[in-house]
Amino acid sequence: MELRVGQSASFGKTVSESDIYGMAGIIGDFNSLHVNQLEAARSPFGDRIAHALLPAGFISTVLGMYLPGSGTVYLHQSLDFKAPVKIGDTVTATAAVTEVIDPVKGIYRFRTFCENQRGELVADGQAVIKYLPPEADTNK
Amino acid sequence: MELRVGQSASFGKTVSESDIYGMAGIIGDFNSLHVNQLEAARSPFGDRIAHALLPAGFISTVLGMYLPGSGTVYLHQSLDFKAPVKIGDTVTATAAVTEVIDPVKGIYRFRTFCENQRGELVADGQAVIKYLPPEADTNK
Amino acid sequence: MELRVGQSASFGKTVSESDIYGMAGIIGDFNSLHVNQLEAARSPFGDRIAHALLPAGFISTVLGMYLPGSGTVYLHQSLDFKAPVKIGDTVTATAAVTEVIDPVKGIYRFRTFCENQRGELVADGQAVIKYLPPEADTNK
Amino acid sequence: MELRVGQSASFGKTVSESDIYGMAGIIGDFNSLHVNQLEAARSPFGDRIAHALLPAGFISTVLGMYLPGSGTVYLHQSLDFKAPVKIGDTVTATAAVTEVIDPVKGIYRFRTFCENQRGELVADGQAVIKYLPPEADTNK
Repeated sequence: MELRVGQSASFGKTVSESDIYGMAGIIGDFNSLHVNQLEAARSPFGDRIAHALLPAGFISTVLGMYLPGSGTVYLHQSLDFKAPVKIGDTVTATAAVTEVIDPVKGIYRFRTFCENQRGELVADGQAVIKYLPPEADTNK
Repeated sequence: MELRVGQSASFGKTVSESDIYGMAGIIGDFNSLHVNQLEAARSPFGDRIAHALLPAGFISTVLGMYLPGSGTVYLHQSLDFKAPVKIGDTVTATAAVTEVIDPVKGIYRFRTFCENQRGELVADGQAVIKYLPPEADTNK
Repeated sequence: MELRVGQSASFGKTVSESDIYGMAGIIGDFNSLHVNQLEAARSPFGDRIAHALLPAGFISTVLGMYLPGSGTVYLHQSLDFKAPVKIGDTVTATAAVTEVIDPVKGIYRFRTFCENQRGELVADGQAVIKYLPPEADTNK
Repeated sequence: MELRVGQSASFGKTVSESDIYGMAGIIGDFNSLHVNQLEAARSPFGDRIAHALLPAGFISTVLGMYLPGSGTVYLHQSLDFKAPVKIGDTVTATAAVTEVIDPVKGIYRFRTFCENQRGELVADGQAVIKYLPPEADTNK
């Protein structure tokens, strides 16, 4: 697959309590804002919120599953986190090719962003990835 | 807690297959490089590798658990991914305060990086967070 | 870190269904009170309750993460279980140093207890741990 | 079921890395002894060890699944932790009735202990539980 500027793909998921708890359990981040309703209720958010890296993960899913897909190698990701994600929010991540950095080595730049069900920007930034079409890849 | 330039903290974890599979199961990124040993063996890495966001998650843990700790809100994270993380690697994430951006609003910049058990840089970048000491926070 | 009588630390988490099911799945305790809503509704509790060892686990987290922190070795734990924990309850575990048993070997006694969001005592008892500050420990 | 002094039951499980990581992920205890091979190798144990509450959990399983079984309510558990549990160890938990404290209210005392595959005592202590045979309980 050859990537061209302007191509884009999206992936969305409704965030569950078990997503947040699972993420805490893998990375070890039990910040009270994520897992302690008593403390989170007193915070400016008023409720438990997802780790910022959860919507970031959905960008990884767009790149690794859809565009360009399996075999994608992450070289860079930067993100501004603009709004909290709460349990029950549906987050849609989008990645759009903005630059073909090196077509021979397969290096591309994407704008990457996540929106919630109200169309609010949750995270916004860019990714650089490396992708060379595999000869035979079954997870594409 | 008041943050000063030069303060740093670290968190390390040995990456298990269950970490990678759990992360895939939450975010939905089943890129063959992460979960398909057959394909991963044919890749330049020769083996399944962790999602780039797994070591990034350990940075979230340093910031949300140790420095400054619970109550930390992520505003920005950028990372260059420099080396793959394989099953059994021990990744140590470090965050070091590099700038007090706004002491009143509690906004700080950190250098954030991850190293493996051989001292190789796995990921390197910076984070901006907001942290105002809570009046009473039990997950400190 | 030197421990002194009177020092204390806490950790709190809102207990999710996935916490109870995850615990059942690891230890194998599928007592109907924990995983069978039909039976639990007929019990004196009226609802599924967490394994008693779940709040006990939060004590382990206080000792292993905060006071004294990583490197802590458990020698003894005793707990009276005083009230049930239901899905959605926020349990805060506290450990307070009550005796320096052997400062050279690093052996300390703690009062350990857990409370719910209404301030009710869920579990109460004591722990004895061994802790010698490591020369270099990154999970501090 | 009526319980008599001398009755006993056992439950054994081979402890996997995913058991330890899952336990850490639920309770939040990422003490380096449990999840950081680099640090654990430098500790007196030489290797990652299970949380002390993992073998304790197997006792909960004996009481809640076998003797007396589903419907058991934990009132007390005390344990001395005598030896570490490493990945691959098979731990067998045993509970033996030592006292019928109140037959009408269904309150019993057990000796509870865990051994590894070499017959070494891993944990030893006692439990007090409440158990009234349910009229109809499907998880027995």
